[in-house]
Amino acid sequence: MKSVDVCLSPELVHLYDVTDKTVVVVDILRATSCMVTAFAHGVADIKPYADLEECKAAASAGYETSGERNGEKVEGFNRGNSPFEYMAEAIRGKHIAFTTTNGTQAIDKAQKAKALLIGAFLNIQAVANAVQELNHPTLIVCAGWKGRFNLEDTLFAGALAKRLMGTFKPEDDAVLAAMELYENAKGNLVAFLQKSSHVQRLARLNIHKDIEFCLTPDVYAVVPELQNDHLILRR
Amino acid sequence: MKSVDVCLSPELVHLYDVTDKTVVVVDILRATSCMVTAFAHGVADIKPYADLEECKAAASAGYETSGERNGEKVEGFNRGNSPFEYMAEAIRGKHIAFTTTNGTQAIDKAQKAKALLIGAFLNIQAVANAVQELNHPTLIVCAGWKGRFNLEDTLFAGALAKRLMGTFKPEDDAVLAAMELYENAKGNLVAFLQKSSHVQRLARLNIHKDIEFCLTPDVYAVVPELQNDHLILRR
Repeated sequence: MKSVDVCLSPELVHLYDVTDKTVVVVDILRATSCMVTAFAHGVADIKPYADLEECKAAASAGYETSGERNGEKVEGFNRGNSPFEYMAEAIRGKHIAFTTTNGTQAIDKAQKAKALLIGAFLNIQAVANAVQELNHPTLIVCAGWKGRFNLEDTLFAGALAKRLMGTFKPEDDAVLAAMELYENAKGNLVAFLQKSSHVQRLARLNIHKDIEFCLTPDVYAVVPELQNDHLILRR
Repeated sequence: MKSVDVCLSPELVHLYDVTDKTVVVVDILRATSCMVTAFAHGVADIKPYADLEECKAAASAGYETSGERNGEKVEGFNRGNSPFEYMAEAIRGKHIAFTTTNGTQAIDKAQKAKALLIGAFLNIQAVANAVQELNHPTLIVCAGWKGRFNLEDTLFAGALAKRLMGTFKPEDDAVLAAMELYENAKGNLVAFLQKSSHVQRLARLNIHKDIEFCLTPDVYAVVPELQNDHLILRR
């Protein structure tokens, strides 16, 4: 039986050898929730950028630009970081360059993974299925907040690990802790996260609707996967 | 009201400005439990070393040597990493050079703290009292296991934060998670930690007695504190 573990911050990815692993990157609020929503609405591909200026420059190569810094849309970009911006028919067939404070940094740090999938509550069962199909040791990488631990990504990690139990075994203490926390929270994720500082920070930006949506499981059955520096729809 | 936060790994200490903070370093199994036990039995001072060779070399400067790598005593050292080795009358007045896989690394990384205290379940209320006396913003730094998250240090962090609630406020998600986990575990810490990979690793070394002792709260009322690169008894 293969193992599943959780890396609680992008700053800890170097402690893991990802080259033989499936890595699931998660940034619930809101990068990976946006990416999943975009693929569910027919985006062609998304190129993730850690660097803001490089992302801006991609506009001249035919990309539409998306993203945020510190939770707010970057000036001049086509789209920000709300999943509701990725639901219009206009997204179909588009090529998007995407940069965020945390999520695209985590993708960058884990890019040497054997397989790299994008996870969110929105597509959690589809991701669980893909992880089981791939059947490699699996590491769930939480994007966190500027390198620090956050609750919502950890709760997703616990929820995904729970769905893998029986076909995967827990590797280390971080996955045990994530599953414990998810058990405490699962009755009402929104209420549980009211305590979270990151959620309070985002709540000041008036995105309650985003938060509730991003915590909804199994809205979409798509799995974005990294191939040659681009996220594409996994077939 | 000052804040209390938790740093879940020494590899994340650089994300925090510790210069205005009280830092409590914890390595329950077993470095900080040993240090607290040693001060309760009259050790004069302990010089922590991140580097094994430097620690060895301290013997020629009049230090007795203590420590472990990967859970096992270093060959040629006077003492290993079991708290029961630090209870004899022979410890009184001694100068000890101490190096461990995780605990002394964490002390090294947090050494610029405004005040640096050594915490363990064994002295948890004494540490809570000292943190309240100092009344700075406080960061509990978990030693973890080779940079990764571990449960026992996180449970201590949650337990200490709980004792500070009312006089300190939680800063960020990590302290909220640590308190949640401690609530789940507090009925029986030993049983809760049976799931932990690190505890299973140590159990193979036949230290069940050490583990039970290290999880016992309020055995001693001493607080070791870093002063000029040495740990001394806080007065």
